[in-house]
Amino acid sequence: MKIAVLGASGYTGADLVRLALTHPQVEIAALSANAKAGQSMADIWPHFAHTSLPGLVKAEDIDFAPLDFVFGCLPHAASAALLSQIEGPKIIDLSADFRLKNAATYAQWYGLAHPAPTLLPGAVYGLTEFARAALPEARLVSCPGCYPTAALLALLPLADAIKPTNISINALSGVSGAGRSLKEANLFAEVSEAVAPYAVGSHRHMPEIEQELSAAFGESVTISFTPHLLPMNRGELETIIVELRAGETAASLRALLHARYTDEPFVHLLPEGVAPATRMVRGSNHAVINVFADRIPGRAIVIVAIDNLVKGSSGQALQNMNLMAGLPETAGLEAAPLFP
Amino acid sequence: MKIAVLGASGYTGADLVRLALTHPQVEIAALSANAKAGQSMADIWPHFAHTSLPGLVKAEDIDFAPLDFVFGCLPHAASAALLSQIEGPKIIDLSADFRLKNAATYAQWYGLAHPAPTLLPGAVYGLTEFARAALPEARLVSCPGCYPTAALLALLPLADAIKPTNISINALSGVSGAGRSLKEANLFAEVSEAVAPYAVGSHRHMPEIEQELSAAFGESVTISFTPHLLPMNRGELETIIVELRAGETAASLRALLHARYTDEPFVHLLPEGVAPATRMVRGSNHAVINVFADRIPGRAIVIVAIDNLVKGSSGQALQNMNLMAGLPETAGLEAAPLFP
Amino acid sequence: MKIAVLGASGYTGADLVRLALTHPQVEIAALSANAKAGQSMADIWPHFAHTSLPGLVKAEDIDFAPLDFVFGCLPHAASAALLSQIEGPKIIDLSADFRLKNAATYAQWYGLAHPAPTLLPGAVYGLTEFARAALPEARLVSCPGCYPTAALLALLPLADAIKPTNISINALSGVSGAGRSLKEANLFAEVSEAVAPYAVGSHRHMPEIEQELSAAFGESVTISFTPHLLPMNRGELETIIVELRAGETAASLRALLHARYTDEPFVHLLPEGVAPATRMVRGSNHAVINVFADRIPGRAIVIVAIDNLVKGSSGQALQNMNLMAGLPETAGLEAAPLFP
Amino acid sequence: MKIAVLGASGYTGADLVRLALTHPQVEIAALSANAKAGQSMADIWPHFAHTSLPGLVKAEDIDFAPLDFVFGCLPHAASAALLSQIEGPKIIDLSADFRLKNAATYAQWYGLAHPAPTLLPGAVYGLTEFARAALPEARLVSCPGCYPTAALLALLPLADAIKPTNISINALSGVSGAGRSLKEANLFAEVSEAVAPYAVGSHRHMPEIEQELSAAFGESVTISFTPHLLPMNRGELETIIVELRAGETAASLRALLHARYTDEPFVHLLPEGVAPATRMVRGSNHAVINVFADRIPGRAIVIVAIDNLVKGSSGQALQNMNLMAGLPETAGLEAAPLFP
Repeated sequence: MKIAVLGASGYTGADLVRLALTHPQVEIAALSANAKAGQSMADIWPHFAHTSLPGLVKAEDIDFAPLDFVFGCLPHAASAALLSQIEGPKIIDLSADFRLKNAATYAQWYGLAHPAPTLLPGAVYGLTEFARAALPEARLVSCPGCYPTAALLALLPLADAIKPTNISINALSGVSGAGRSLKEANLFAEVSEAVAPYAVGSHRHMPEIEQELSAAFGESVTISFTPHLLPMNRGELETIIVELRAGETAASLRALLHARYTDEPFVHLLPEGVAPATRMVRGSNHAVINVFADRIPGRAIVIVAIDNLVKGSSGQALQNMNLMAGLPETAGLEAAPLFP
Repeated sequence: MKIAVLGASGYTGADLVRLALTHPQVEIAALSANAKAGQSMADIWPHFAHTSLPGLVKAEDIDFAPLDFVFGCLPHAASAALLSQIEGPKIIDLSADFRLKNAATYAQWYGLAHPAPTLLPGAVYGLTEFARAALPEARLVSCPGCYPTAALLALLPLADAIKPTNISINALSGVSGAGRSLKEANLFAEVSEAVAPYAVGSHRHMPEIEQELSAAFGESVTISFTPHLLPMNRGELETIIVELRAGETAASLRALLHARYTDEPFVHLLPEGVAPATRMVRGSNHAVINVFADRIPGRAIVIVAIDNLVKGSSGQALQNMNLMAGLPETAGLEAAPLFP
Repeated sequence: MKIAVLGASGYTGADLVRLALTHPQVEIAALSANAKAGQSMADIWPHFAHTSLPGLVKAEDIDFAPLDFVFGCLPHAASAALLSQIEGPKIIDLSADFRLKNAATYAQWYGLAHPAPTLLPGAVYGLTEFARAALPEARLVSCPGCYPTAALLALLPLADAIKPTNISINALSGVSGAGRSLKEANLFAEVSEAVAPYAVGSHRHMPEIEQELSAAFGESVTISFTPHLLPMNRGELETIIVELRAGETAASLRALLHARYTDEPFVHLLPEGVAPATRMVRGSNHAVINVFADRIPGRAIVIVAIDNLVKGSSGQALQNMNLMAGLPETAGLEAAPLFP
Repeated sequence: MKIAVLGASGYTGADLVRLALTHPQVEIAALSANAKAGQSMADIWPHFAHTSLPGLVKAEDIDFAPLDFVFGCLPHAASAALLSQIEGPKIIDLSADFRLKNAATYAQWYGLAHPAPTLLPGAVYGLTEFARAALPEARLVSCPGCYPTAALLALLPLADAIKPTNISINALSGVSGAGRSLKEANLFAEVSEAVAPYAVGSHRHMPEIEQELSAAFGESVTISFTPHLLPMNRGELETIIVELRAGETAASLRALLHARYTDEPFVHLLPEGVAPATRMVRGSNHAVINVFADRIPGRAIVIVAIDNLVKGSSGQALQNMNLMAGLPETAGLEAAPLFP
């Protein structure tokens, strides 16, 4: 598979390159980063100092014709504008542009008209474990946001057992989720030894989670979602409170997750009582989930952990590519988590 | 004020000593740590390397008669057993032993019969801002746990505006809350670059929060409480979902908090939209609170941050001592937070 | 003492404000930050969210006449240009502008002609412990850089016992030393879980250390100096290899340091064998030093730790002010280190 | 290759298992940890929660006969005592027991008589890049310590260009180097936001470095070595001052390193002026080196970075196994570094 990565100067793009480097069927043919065109990856990424990779070019200078896959790791809006021009290779977009099916919802949350609304109906929402039927024929796959990936893996198998009301997601994320852009809030001395919530009640991943939960429940779902920025590079953990339907318990939710994920290579229900932790998945494409009884009757606590840059972004993108290309789903993603 | 600190070899005891060192009316007369008796504070605490302090002795070797205050920084059970023997000085206990009014509840959660149940009725629950009437005459003050301190500061003023149902507390804490004991879970390489919940549904601070909320609401309250361990030394942040009574809004909750805390020296409602962060209070006795609308109608999100070792423990203990002794409430606690 | 802090939007300026807030004889009369004029300190500094402070103004809008002291926390060149215009109050500069006595050396290392060379002869080099005679009469005091402060406290008392040759300083610093400016190298995800040297062989603190050592040794000294950036907010540790003069040993160096610092309030020789650590001084104005035998005969290893923002910058500035104003030297600087 | 890992409950053993899991020619046949025999790897290692591995057994319960390789990740002394009993498989020891050729030196530094001195002459010192000739026939390979690995990779190619005198190694290490044992000094709250040297003048890696440098220089070499503990999980960086032989320069040292390492898969000379950083190698088997001119004439600064658990331990062990087994040297070690 000959691939191009557009936006290779961000953390997401770089982590895709990191994984692709050891993928046995992938050849990295082109890397773009418009503001850094002309530089080498080693110039801008310390961990590629000793790696041989194509130099960075402008996206417009890439010959897309011979490629099999283009990965879009660009900011929203810019992504759709560029990807909609590309013919030939299949497209896997990691931006937010093709996640929301409704162009009006997109306009409302992102503050601008969608750059390519005609592509929305055909875009496959690439939460891999729930998209396998559609992936082989897809031409455009939109990878879910990191927070939605974790939330939906935890909640989608539970739709028959929990109520669609009062789903409350408390989310904790490492700083790489904020990207490599120069913001004071992302400086080491601001983040280290500290924690704070951000975008309370206004985070753009909310409508995406609601869209998918609404489809699963067959009715409109409104969620509560509060993300927090933590002093760590990677990792994402969500602690989700759900209301149980009559007769359901934490144990019955565990049974549903067990049934759904027992054969999955990357999603794992932990043994009863074991709390998910980000160190279980660091640097890997794995997700770990568990369910606990809440002290308030009629509710349960579902907890899920992923690596935001891998299963939450670049790893899932490669997992999607594998299925789109008919490769083994785990190709290039077998590395165990890095701990400590 | 001549004071003794029992259990000066733990983080809580050490932080009490740190603050007491610059308190203008305090003389540190005795320090105990049974397992380290005979050593100096400089031997066991790097930051006291250049400080003159009494040597560590066994508690039984302290002459309590000339003292004004004894601070108990011992483990639960050991604390009540020892403090109940002391006559003369007033006692400020930082352990869990005198927080729960009901000895049966104590036995249930701590797994042993209360060592001194006859002292429970007279013990004042020392959440300072809500205990000022009782403190001057108190002989035994029990300082709240760190999580209850944050939760109760945020919730007590709201009792008329929120429902007693479905109060959901998501709590984030620095590692010093786990103490200086040698547990694998507290090793640097286990904690750094990682986050995980712990004691899900079973944390011992739950009955304490429920006791105080039940008193405030005038009915039995059951809460949801999930704590998480974060890779930072200090700091505690709680994100609390509450259900609003009819007619209430996030704004009306803010108005209640504003009214309650506008004259308080250590508890602060932040400007609208500003998220509490632990770096606002690091190393200080301050608490910061704010309220946000939840995306789910009829609910609000209350967020509060404190330093777990100061307002959540040693600082509040000194604040209580100030009021018990008729000193200015802020004496010894004026230092601004340390940032970065 | 009525003071103004110019450049209150940087970490150095903010830490000066933090310390000044609890100084019993200081009134903060004015704060400047040209790019943020019109904002409040609470707007830009989370830890001052609950503090009453003057609003930020442009430096040119300050009435300097009624002030006693002006603290310059501005970038080099800008500092001298502004401070040289101020009449009336005494001036304590924390920039590099008045540290080097030789304007040509300044031009060589800073790449521009000195903005106010006529002020250089009268400027006192404010390494407090070695400047006490000059401080009371000084009108302009230049505070040493953080690295020179640590190095000179360790080395100046040893001039008769060590050779001026092959002094090799390996320096480790927290990230706050790099300031609050938006550089990719200072982002959390770049710094966390990592260490690297920087400015190898070219750091601007080298000529300053050489100037003071040359004066102490009575001959021209050239040093080796390699700084490293560490994943921590504060703290600075230098491991210095020195060559011994005939008859000297690690023990004799310790004796010299003991004699020199035994009565000092802020500089401490540690007990034999105890390694200096930044956690011994975090947030405080203290410095800790020790000497160890090197495995290579004829050499010793001198190790020193300070808080780069306090003794390395703002704390020493206040210590200088105390002596310039005839106040107790430790006023406002008594707080014990913050640990953990 | 069927392998056993003895001591799989430590960080070194766990990282060996992590790497072996994706090695295409390795089957993990047995894992021992005497104190944890009967538990699963998932019980004690969070990142193996979702991995299928043999259960932990006592070493004495392993049938060594069908194995190809045994990896010893045990404490010193225990390692030699056990490994000397094993017949059949080849042995790769990661402890210190077979590094020092002289049993008397071992006794002096480790405080006990060597448990198996007759094995010392035949043990190959497995600094892979310098041991390729001996590895294919070796039955017992002793992997270098992490600090010696970095130091020797940097210095061995320079023996003809630098003097054997006054080699001064300043070393910085992540906390995983201290192992998973329960020591107060390794607790998160002790290490975070802090740095300190340790074992000044007495670290046990010194005689090992001296042994290999003495062999390279053809004369007895005494070094200076000061390690520091940093608040990070992994990574090791050494800043080494060397004295140049006549006519040599930093540039000529770079030329020597370039010639020596240009074809090496894991050791890399960085471009001129680029400082080695641990983030360049995190989680990988790579080493990065560079040389800088010192400000003191006649000297140079050589800087090297590795991951202490990979190239400094488990990765190098697998690299050695590959050569002992006639496999491609990079098998199982191709993963790019993890950043951020």
